[in-house]
Amino acid sequence: MRVLLHEIRSKPILWLLAFVPALFVLAKVKHDAHTLLFVLSVLAIVPLAALLSLATESVAAKTGDAVGGLLNATLGNLTELVIALAALRAGQYTLVKASIAGAIVTNTLFMLGISFLLGGLKEHTQEFNRVSARLQSALLFLATVALLVPSAISQADSATAPFMHQLSLGLSVLLICAYGLGLLFSLKTHKEFFGSAEHAEHGDAAWPMGLALVTLAGVTVVVALVSEVFVESVQHAAETFGMSPAFVGFIIVAIVGAAAEMVSAFSAARKNRLDLSVGIALGSAAQIALFVAPVLVLVSYVLGPSPMDLQFWPGAVVMMLIATMTATLVTNSGRSAWFVGVLVVMVYCIFAMTLYLLPPRG
Amino acid sequence: MRVLLHEIRSKPILWLLAFVPALFVLAKVKHDAHTLLFVLSVLAIVPLAALLSLATESVAAKTGDAVGGLLNATLGNLTELVIALAALRAGQYTLVKASIAGAIVTNTLFMLGISFLLGGLKEHTQEFNRVSARLQSALLFLATVALLVPSAISQADSATAPFMHQLSLGLSVLLICAYGLGLLFSLKTHKEFFGSAEHAEHGDAAWPMGLALVTLAGVTVVVALVSEVFVESVQHAAETFGMSPAFVGFIIVAIVGAAAEMVSAFSAARKNRLDLSVGIALGSAAQIALFVAPVLVLVSYVLGPSPMDLQFWPGAVVMMLIATMTATLVTNSGRSAWFVGVLVVMVYCIFAMTLYLLPPRG
Amino acid sequence: MRVLLHEIRSKPILWLLAFVPALFVLAKVKHDAHTLLFVLSVLAIVPLAALLSLATESVAAKTGDAVGGLLNATLGNLTELVIALAALRAGQYTLVKASIAGAIVTNTLFMLGISFLLGGLKEHTQEFNRVSARLQSALLFLATVALLVPSAISQADSATAPFMHQLSLGLSVLLICAYGLGLLFSLKTHKEFFGSAEHAEHGDAAWPMGLALVTLAGVTVVVALVSEVFVESVQHAAETFGMSPAFVGFIIVAIVGAAAEMVSAFSAARKNRLDLSVGIALGSAAQIALFVAPVLVLVSYVLGPSPMDLQFWPGAVVMMLIATMTATLVTNSGRSAWFVGVLVVMVYCIFAMTLYLLPPRG
Repeated sequence: MRVLLHEIRSKPILWLLAFVPALFVLAKVKHDAHTLLFVLSVLAIVPLAALLSLATESVAAKTGDAVGGLLNATLGNLTELVIALAALRAGQYTLVKASIAGAIVTNTLFMLGISFLLGGLKEHTQEFNRVSARLQSALLFLATVALLVPSAISQADSATAPFMHQLSLGLSVLLICAYGLGLLFSLKTHKEFFGSAEHAEHGDAAWPMGLALVTLAGVTVVVALVSEVFVESVQHAAETFGMSPAFVGFIIVAIVGAAAEMVSAFSAARKNRLDLSVGIALGSAAQIALFVAPVLVLVSYVLGPSPMDLQFWPGAVVMMLIATMTATLVTNSGRSAWFVGVLVVMVYCIFAMTLYLLPPRG
Repeated sequence: MRVLLHEIRSKPILWLLAFVPALFVLAKVKHDAHTLLFVLSVLAIVPLAALLSLATESVAAKTGDAVGGLLNATLGNLTELVIALAALRAGQYTLVKASIAGAIVTNTLFMLGISFLLGGLKEHTQEFNRVSARLQSALLFLATVALLVPSAISQADSATAPFMHQLSLGLSVLLICAYGLGLLFSLKTHKEFFGSAEHAEHGDAAWPMGLALVTLAGVTVVVALVSEVFVESVQHAAETFGMSPAFVGFIIVAIVGAAAEMVSAFSAARKNRLDLSVGIALGSAAQIALFVAPVLVLVSYVLGPSPMDLQFWPGAVVMMLIATMTATLVTNSGRSAWFVGVLVVMVYCIFAMTLYLLPPRG
Repeated sequence: MRVLLHEIRSKPILWLLAFVPALFVLAKVKHDAHTLLFVLSVLAIVPLAALLSLATESVAAKTGDAVGGLLNATLGNLTELVIALAALRAGQYTLVKASIAGAIVTNTLFMLGISFLLGGLKEHTQEFNRVSARLQSALLFLATVALLVPSAISQADSATAPFMHQLSLGLSVLLICAYGLGLLFSLKTHKEFFGSAEHAEHGDAAWPMGLALVTLAGVTVVVALVSEVFVESVQHAAETFGMSPAFVGFIIVAIVGAAAEMVSAFSAARKNRLDLSVGIALGSAAQIALFVAPVLVLVSYVLGPSPMDLQFWPGAVVMMLIATMTATLVTNSGRSAWFVGVLVVMVYCIFAMTLYLLPPRG
């Protein structure tokens, strides 16, 4: 417990934990104060996500490379998964899909771009391991393309609903198999290519195993509860702020869910360890495409009011494709400077602006 | 003749030749047994394609580099061409186009992916000549893009039929010119970049010239006869197996037609000669785009019931673009490991699954 | 003045200046001879553009690196800007957009392709600085993608006019900011990557400052006057020659506007200075996307009959994307040979052929 308190004292982001009880009290007392509930739930998720990632890393450090890597890889996007599950149970499939697409775009454009920018403001040019970066961006590209095939085909030809469901189901199984093989690849047969990303935060002393496990379980439950409030309030809050649901799912949910990883990626970039930043950003995006998205499809058959398919709205397809092509292109040369970061972030801003201005479809 | 018998004894794939007479007998006796005829014609084409490629290589070996290279490059996709011509004469333009698109996708995804996978299962990582691979994938990309322009433009804007025919005709002439210049480039002015691909099978003793030429001529005629049975039976068989015509053209015809080249590419990959595998896969795909497709358009004015254009159905365009982008990306780093092969094959499986599930359009 | 006459004597392209007075006389006397006026104005713009670029370089040489680079970068596409402004004032937004798209495509495909081809005919293979080329093609790709987002999104989802105007306005401000930061990057913080492109023409003695400034101002006015005749006559002339307005804007205006830069790029390629050719071609295309296009949108609020948006017709979007992807791919390996040039030019020819054959929409 003392370890936990020490962490909280030393990491300002964890001070936001104070918003968690505040949120629950308000949700009980005044459950139609949607805008305030929305703001509070966003503020509460950020420190919880940070706690989750600290706990995961501690367990990973104790259990050794193979199991630890597996845990890191599986629980790295736990926050996104829990939020999406809450939206899934509420039957808000548009929000689920927007948050999947948004997580891929945000990780590859915003996280990567800000990393390049922050790194570039400290160093004149930064070099990073071209071979791993290319391998990772190739994996990301293929993962995203695989995810997009149903949307691409169905837009092109007018497809029927039963066809989309069959295809999404088959695809999800394929993607999860690929994810499993990818773990075998990155943790076992070719771990030297992905090595640096694992001992990222080991500067900090790891927590005791018991505390880490309890934190992991407890915080996941809390995140699930907060997510439910978040998903309930988001629709109303979006209207109040004049934001389209696409903007909320794509930008807000994605940034909130990835806040913890962003902190790691940005601090690595400032320490001139761009390999690590690139690995976190691209790896996290690939995990969404290969693991989170297909799991959500499969789970929707059990939890959701009706099965979910993998057909994204056309604009999301364009954005995901552009995002992964940008990541591929930008990591290809193995070097970066501040202006590359500016341009990558600019593409993200343009996407955000477009989604913000886009009139709601109906 | 003894040489031929020796080849047949030593190459198990050639034992399938027994299906050729069986097919002709059945076609005579019971020409409405479509499903059986379809299966037999597939089994008969595979060894004939292998014989064709052996004969081509023998002639090429005897005639020296320049003429030999020319022969190899022109006759390398003879099987695909003959099958497509049979479909063209029957007026089955959907099948012709599906087999063109399928050949490009199958060569760049299936052949390349399985090569990477097989090679990666033997070696930890494989390196290959980055410079030639990049040059070849750039050629392939440009060739495919050129082929896709009419479809891309006409989808975007609603185009009229006379416009499509004019454009397809002009484009075909341009593509064949580019193909001729490409031969000049790869066989004459810059042959050092493409060198390794030529003396591939020279381990085997070359056949005598006379035998090789007779085999070439004779087998081409037999392939043409078998293709006619194949094209006739394919529609009915597809219905029986519950396969869409798109799936048959795209996947079955493409794999059958490229069987012989696949054997070469896969065995090279297992011998850690990935340069050769990449060269066969990308070179063969580029040849379909630059030579086979435009020749079919031109020939359709003479042989077909009406002129054929180069407008592909939207899904095929998406698949061809993704396939060539994947090839470009994956060969870019000049190194490969088994998981890269898995992902490339996965994209192919997703395409196959989509086409299999796709309801027939009508 | 003697310097100017000496230039004119030594540069055959400047002899075309004789067409300028001829044009004005004809426009006064017989202002409905549209076809002749069109031909004369094309012939008059070419030498004026060459004069403009000579004057800009002279001023740049005198004012030193920072200001000079700024001038070069801003005035490099002055001809395109002035022609587009004339079209804007006449309310011909289709022509304006076609000329923006055409300038990007022409610079990346035609200028780059012919440079590779001319260089490749003299040298067996040409190497160029891969690092700068990749950085520049990454900038170009991002700039083009940014420009295309409204079109891509709005095609995908049906967008409304007020949304498009808001988005185009916001986007223009973002693009100009990116352009400003890009200048800071290429002229100040990282000028070593772009170094070679600046002292291109310094072989020639620079003109005196006074003469250069007067020429710059005077020729700009003359170009503006010629452009007005050009824009007026182009519609009628297009009908006479059987050319679609898309073809005129995309191909004719773009080649005419970039004539001066092409001369520099081609002569650098023949001198085996491919770095310079690549820099001119890609830099000029990026400048159109990041500076000329947004300036035209902003100016349309003041000068035009109604605000202009950044929504391009779908075919133009496809062409711009293919063009920048081609440039990225082709400059990626850092080496080139004649056939690469042939293929790049072939893609351009296919675009030109498609636009020529495309029936006018209405």
